[in-house]
Amino acid sequence: MSKGRLEAFSDGVLAVIITIMVLEMRAPHATSFAALWPIAPVFLSYVLSFIYIGIYWSNHHHLLHAVERVNGAALWANLHLLFWVSLIPFTTAWLGGSGLATWPVAIYGVVLLLAALAYYILAKVLIAAQKGRSVLADAIGRDKKTVVSLGIYAAAISLGFLRPWMGCAGYVIVAIIWLIPDRRIERILAATEEAGE
Amino acid sequence: MSKGRLEAFSDGVLAVIITIMVLEMRAPHATSFAALWPIAPVFLSYVLSFIYIGIYWSNHHHLLHAVERVNGAALWANLHLLFWVSLIPFTTAWLGGSGLATWPVAIYGVVLLLAALAYYILAKVLIAAQKGRSVLADAIGRDKKTVVSLGIYAAAISLGFLRPWMGCAGYVIVAIIWLIPDRRIERILAATEEAGE
Amino acid sequence: MSKGRLEAFSDGVLAVIITIMVLEMRAPHATSFAALWPIAPVFLSYVLSFIYIGIYWSNHHHLLHAVERVNGAALWANLHLLFWVSLIPFTTAWLGGSGLATWPVAIYGVVLLLAALAYYILAKVLIAAQKGRSVLADAIGRDKKTVVSLGIYAAAISLGFLRPWMGCAGYVIVAIIWLIPDRRIERILAATEEAGE
Amino acid sequence: MSKGRLEAFSDGVLAVIITIMVLEMRAPHATSFAALWPIAPVFLSYVLSFIYIGIYWSNHHHLLHAVERVNGAALWANLHLLFWVSLIPFTTAWLGGSGLATWPVAIYGVVLLLAALAYYILAKVLIAAQKGRSVLADAIGRDKKTVVSLGIYAAAISLGFLRPWMGCAGYVIVAIIWLIPDRRIERILAATEEAGE
Repeated sequence: MSKGRLEAFSDGVLAVIITIMVLEMRAPHATSFAALWPIAPVFLSYVLSFIYIGIYWSNHHHLLHAVERVNGAALWANLHLLFWVSLIPFTTAWLGGSGLATWPVAIYGVVLLLAALAYYILAKVLIAAQKGRSVLADAIGRDKKTVVSLGIYAAAISLGFLRPWMGCAGYVIVAIIWLIPDRRIERILAATEEAGE
Repeated sequence: MSKGRLEAFSDGVLAVIITIMVLEMRAPHATSFAALWPIAPVFLSYVLSFIYIGIYWSNHHHLLHAVERVNGAALWANLHLLFWVSLIPFTTAWLGGSGLATWPVAIYGVVLLLAALAYYILAKVLIAAQKGRSVLADAIGRDKKTVVSLGIYAAAISLGFLRPWMGCAGYVIVAIIWLIPDRRIERILAATEEAGE
Repeated sequence: MSKGRLEAFSDGVLAVIITIMVLEMRAPHATSFAALWPIAPVFLSYVLSFIYIGIYWSNHHHLLHAVERVNGAALWANLHLLFWVSLIPFTTAWLGGSGLATWPVAIYGVVLLLAALAYYILAKVLIAAQKGRSVLADAIGRDKKTVVSLGIYAAAISLGFLRPWMGCAGYVIVAIIWLIPDRRIERILAATEEAGE
Repeated sequence: MSKGRLEAFSDGVLAVIITIMVLEMRAPHATSFAALWPIAPVFLSYVLSFIYIGIYWSNHHHLLHAVERVNGAALWANLHLLFWVSLIPFTTAWLGGSGLATWPVAIYGVVLLLAALAYYILAKVLIAAQKGRSVLADAIGRDKKTVVSLGIYAAAISLGFLRPWMGCAGYVIVAIIWLIPDRRIERILAATEEAGE
């Protein structure tokens, strides 16, 4: 089964998700500069969510690039990932409109945590679909970064109940960790190409 | 005529449909956990519809994969399918906002029934467009699963007038049936590839 | 310059346009069957516009299929077409909400007329971009169908000021004319392929 | 790393942005021709923004066409560009609803300026990613047009505080400058192809 349509559909869904979030930033009726202030938290949560969806797109790109075959299970593992990512516009709107209240911060993190789990499952399903020992399995075999970020999400969600800003700080930290693209995959792929395998 | 743009356009339409449904889940103004409860039925109908559109995308993927040629009739049979699927966000919003009332449950089922019929017509049109005896015709020749699900839809719509939850149960049953991907096509394609035909 | 991205971008824009129109069909608050009646004109105008955008996608597909080269002018002729088509959700919403009033009927037709003109210009620009005598120029050289539909649009817009339903009838007639795909292009392409040119 | 998905994702995002802007043009409740007048500024700002996004798509198309390789930095430079472009629907809605007030005109220009800077950065990152002396570096080596338009943006934003219409005039002038496609790239690419390099 070709991976072309899986990539095309995922690109389409992620492109729609990343852009419909901006619809939550409604233009104010007033025309003064001060009229933009109430939108500031909505804008900041938009920026954070834009970066997160950019991270998912970028990592999805790297993941599928290292894959040769997809199967029916991979289609559904991919839809499962897209489902949790598709909830980000909702949690972003709630977070942005709440002024860092406890529950919107927590639910924002829970959706991020479940999306990260879904990404982890997708990677496992894709590895299982490859024949023999794959490049991908070598590249993400001991996937420390995912485990670390799952831990930070859990901690951030918990701390968010004490101080909501600490929850948000945790999400920002994970974003920074992931902004560094998955160089392991890039490096091993490059090495494989050079080795002529 | 190449099938590339038919796939690309369908991917685009299905990607937009699956994601604009989430716009119906409006972020509540309150920031308590309890504020999420009124959204629960909207969320559940979103989950069901997300799975349904995922099923259509997955089966559409399998169907087109087994096809070599498309013609003008196939373009329109495909648009006909996309039309009924495009109504799912509307019926999902009505169902989610109604708390399992009789008519929203019935109309939700009618649109699913018509989408299933449209999928059935598309498969027939695509088979007719292939030259000679095609892989696709063998694969979906006796399409029991479609006939069975049309029957369940009809029963679920009828029973929904007695007890709306029975209608929804019927739709969930069809979703479970279809979640199992069309292994017949996968199996026969694999067999064909191995036989070297 | 490759035509791949021109097709991909057009597919994306048309996919979004055809699906965001359904957002105008808002789910009623009431849950009776009668609650659907006020939506009936919105639904009918959605059906008509869905068919029109399907026609544009289908004809765009045929047009680009017959083309070998695109240039900068073709990119902008294509964007010009997409601009007028992008106004269809607006005119559809006004028409659907107005109950066949005079001006919404007229403006709906004016946008269709301008989209048809833009399609005509795009075809001319694409012909001019081909080297020598192209298949496309032969296929759509004497483009009677476009001229006829421009005439019907003009007549329908005028008659719509007397009786709005006559305007709508005109738009339906043009849709029926175009629903028949551009068999001239298909036929000549098929003949060319058989002749081995 | 292949540039195919970078193009596909960018096409998707730009296609969604260019079409969701039309959702801001809400159909009036009245059905008279006069009911369209209050929408006129919204329509005009839609036209300007449609042209701007068309320009970005067209130039993005030319830029990627001249590129052979993309890397991780290019993915993020591209997402950075898409971020600023994704704010155009918001600034368009504020501008269109304000009747040429000072701050909406200024913010509209600031977002355009930042998008132009992001495009400039993307071009630099892409040049750096090519091995040796690339066609692209020759083509946009002395990128006068970008520098000129950054200057006009800055002047237009400043003048807009004196007379808002002067700001808008500046944005229109930049659009006209960019409407002329990047013939330098086209010319050098054509020359390269002819020289058989």
